[in-house]
Amino acid sequence: VSAPRSRDGVWVVTIGDELLRGEIVDSNKSRLSERMLALDLESARHVSVPDDPASMEEVLREAAARARVVLVSGGLGPTRDDLTTEVAARTFGRKLYRDAAALEHVRAFFRRFNREMAENNAKQADFPEGAEVLPNPLGTAPGFMLEVPAGADGEITQLFFMPGVPRELHRMLDEEVMPRVAARLGKGRVVRARLLRTFGIGESNLDRILHDIAQNDADAVLGFRTQFPDNLVRVVVRAADDATANRRLDELEREIRARLGDLVLGVGERGLEEIVAELLREKKLTLAVAESLTGGLVTSRLTDVPGSSAYLLASFVTYANDAKVRELGVDPEALARHGAVSEVVARQMAEGARRRAGTDVGLATTGVAGPDGGSPEKPVGTLWLALADSAGTIAHRYQMMNERRRNKDLASQLALDWLRRRLSGMPITADTFPRLQTAPGTRA
Amino acid sequence: VSAPRSRDGVWVVTIGDELLRGEIVDSNKSRLSERMLALDLESARHVSVPDDPASMEEVLREAAARARVVLVSGGLGPTRDDLTTEVAARTFGRKLYRDAAALEHVRAFFRRFNREMAENNAKQADFPEGAEVLPNPLGTAPGFMLEVPAGADGEITQLFFMPGVPRELHRMLDEEVMPRVAARLGKGRVVRARLLRTFGIGESNLDRILHDIAQNDADAVLGFRTQFPDNLVRVVVRAADDATANRRLDELEREIRARLGDLVLGVGERGLEEIVAELLREKKLTLAVAESLTGGLVTSRLTDVPGSSAYLLASFVTYANDAKVRELGVDPEALARHGAVSEVVARQMAEGARRRAGTDVGLATTGVAGPDGGSPEKPVGTLWLALADSAGTIAHRYQMMNERRRNKDLASQLALDWLRRRLSGMPITADTFPRLQTAPGTRA
Repeated sequence: VSAPRSRDGVWVVTIGDELLRGEIVDSNKSRLSERMLALDLESARHVSVPDDPASMEEVLREAAARARVVLVSGGLGPTRDDLTTEVAARTFGRKLYRDAAALEHVRAFFRRFNREMAENNAKQADFPEGAEVLPNPLGTAPGFMLEVPAGADGEITQLFFMPGVPRELHRMLDEEVMPRVAARLGKGRVVRARLLRTFGIGESNLDRILHDIAQNDADAVLGFRTQFPDNLVRVVVRAADDATANRRLDELEREIRARLGDLVLGVGERGLEEIVAELLREKKLTLAVAESLTGGLVTSRLTDVPGSSAYLLASFVTYANDAKVRELGVDPEALARHGAVSEVVARQMAEGARRRAGTDVGLATTGVAGPDGGSPEKPVGTLWLALADSAGTIAHRYQMMNERRRNKDLASQLALDWLRRRLSGMPITADTFPRLQTAPGTRA
Repeated sequence: VSAPRSRDGVWVVTIGDELLRGEIVDSNKSRLSERMLALDLESARHVSVPDDPASMEEVLREAAARARVVLVSGGLGPTRDDLTTEVAARTFGRKLYRDAAALEHVRAFFRRFNREMAENNAKQADFPEGAEVLPNPLGTAPGFMLEVPAGADGEITQLFFMPGVPRELHRMLDEEVMPRVAARLGKGRVVRARLLRTFGIGESNLDRILHDIAQNDADAVLGFRTQFPDNLVRVVVRAADDATANRRLDELEREIRARLGDLVLGVGERGLEEIVAELLREKKLTLAVAESLTGGLVTSRLTDVPGSSAYLLASFVTYANDAKVRELGVDPEALARHGAVSEVVARQMAEGARRRAGTDVGLATTGVAGPDGGSPEKPVGTLWLALADSAGTIAHRYQMMNERRRNKDLASQLALDWLRRRLSGMPITADTFPRLQTAPGTRA
């Protein structure tokens, strides 16, 4: 989608010394622009300035003159460094007034948590005259919208001022700002995106397999992105309305799924833990996990899902060999002969967890997460996975890389993908994931 | 450090449609600014524009007129969208020439991977006349530096053009750009920062307690930032050299620690799991964890630390009541009478984990993570923590918020902080963390 670029479109301005000092990565700008794109509006410029009144005034003036809508984030807090409201008022020749309802909101926020409101918080209820207050249900700082005449043509520019705290910003953006921007700049066209999450295939292979899809459609584009250990396919279409856009997205999704088969985990940000949760609930199956290499990560991901206590009955993180024997009934002789990182131990762990917790499914991980503990036969990154259910027990070996955290992430994703596959009747084999042995991050 | 903000300082410009569409978060800008800060140079502005020649030309012109050093990243690749070199040449009235050595570098890069160089890659060896080529050992696109006269004062502006691929950018920045910027703008001074991680105190209280530190020192500044559930204090000093800077940082750290006491977790990005790991290792103590509310997260964090198998022997994620009884020996009658979220069950879980795994310390979490399962007596966010060791068992109740993921995060941090406190001889009381009942995210 080569969206039209107009000087009169959207500018995004973020404010904060921490940005200009490189202390934090500014994710607000991308969120703001991403949401604008949903309205078929491509941002014309991102600008960040420090908490310095002169710089702020300069950029506000410039943005108001150049863009029809300016999205500003940051500097609405209670501290002395938070100057955005004051500077906005001065820049556009407005007085500040204290809004009674907003002040009560700030006070109520503190009362709710049994705290006294510090006096400096009162200034979060100050706004430039003529501003429209934008509620902030998640924090003390309301936002506001200011309309100013933009230069010679006398046209109005709308400036939206939002807090810098991401969750507060996201909520205010979606609920308060998007509808107003759509009303002002909406083109009667929509841009809709769909994200397909894949696991077990690399970005360049995705590109190779999918590159000709929608090749001649000016209103559709495919993009690829790695979110380790997954790879994402992003489909963006432009259409006259939601229904048309969704129909086109459905078509494209069908085509992609036809080519990728069970490598597609699903749509959207929905993680594998949620997909597995739904499958377990649907099939009324219970689960127990025995974790060694993943050290609790598989279980922690599963318990991120509300209601997981319905199917996840118990998990055992058995780091010590003793614990494998005691908690899971692993055979001490097998441990001694084959070591904790072995097929037989992986199988006994999965079976032991299932038996012990009395569940339908038992899942086990054992391996060498690194950086130490590797050997020529079992180098760092060695992983054994096992799954036991009423149909029997399966186990496979994988070779991961050298980084402990990435190995835990990848192994937990593999383990959850095994569950997905088993519960959906898809095959599980050692080479279901031929790309696992390649280095992560080899794209450039 | 209220670093001098000069129109003649550094501007950072990043180029790419993907930025303005919000498809990726731009981490290059923060990296570029962070490195400048080490030279005592605070960036005056960040600007991003799409791959659109008119926008690029406009911002290059503006930056060259306003800053003495301009750092540009992106748009040096081989595709049709990569227009930076061409636009830079046109903007500053230079012809393009093809650099033989750079062309050979590009060719060699392909040869190394047994690939044929595509013809479009040759343009990566094109530079504006008068440019100084900056080698790129990690990729095909060399960078370049251009000196242009900046407006009326006739002073020279240096523009550094670098690739957008982060690892290539980082290398070129450190090896080629930093020395040249230091030579041009360096002040013979260094800026050094130190991060103190705190837990259990809110940002505004930190500000209240610490605000007068270094208040009259123009070469030192304190800043605060939330990294839920921690709050960070960042101390930045400017000095003639590293040794002086570090001495001053040591002094300031001492003063901050004197005021905050055991609320300081430590220095740097080091997490609580690493601090606890060191304490357990030092004291040669072993640990078992019984997790209900945290669902494996405490254990997963502990096992993120290399070598954690030395002290973490086993953990039990006992979501089901049955599992609490079976694995941890919790009294079924107590469970029936008081419920799983109760002091007696928390205590029995900690004691059971310790007894069962034969460890020195047992740690337990139980509560209502949400969003469901709350009641008037035990609302969502109720947490019982317990810790059992040779000195006995302690348990306290906390009230967290409404979000499941944040509750897991906060509870796991609290649990690890209990360990830190217990192993360091610091007090643990229910009101050690009076701020826990306050809403997260109240800064803006």
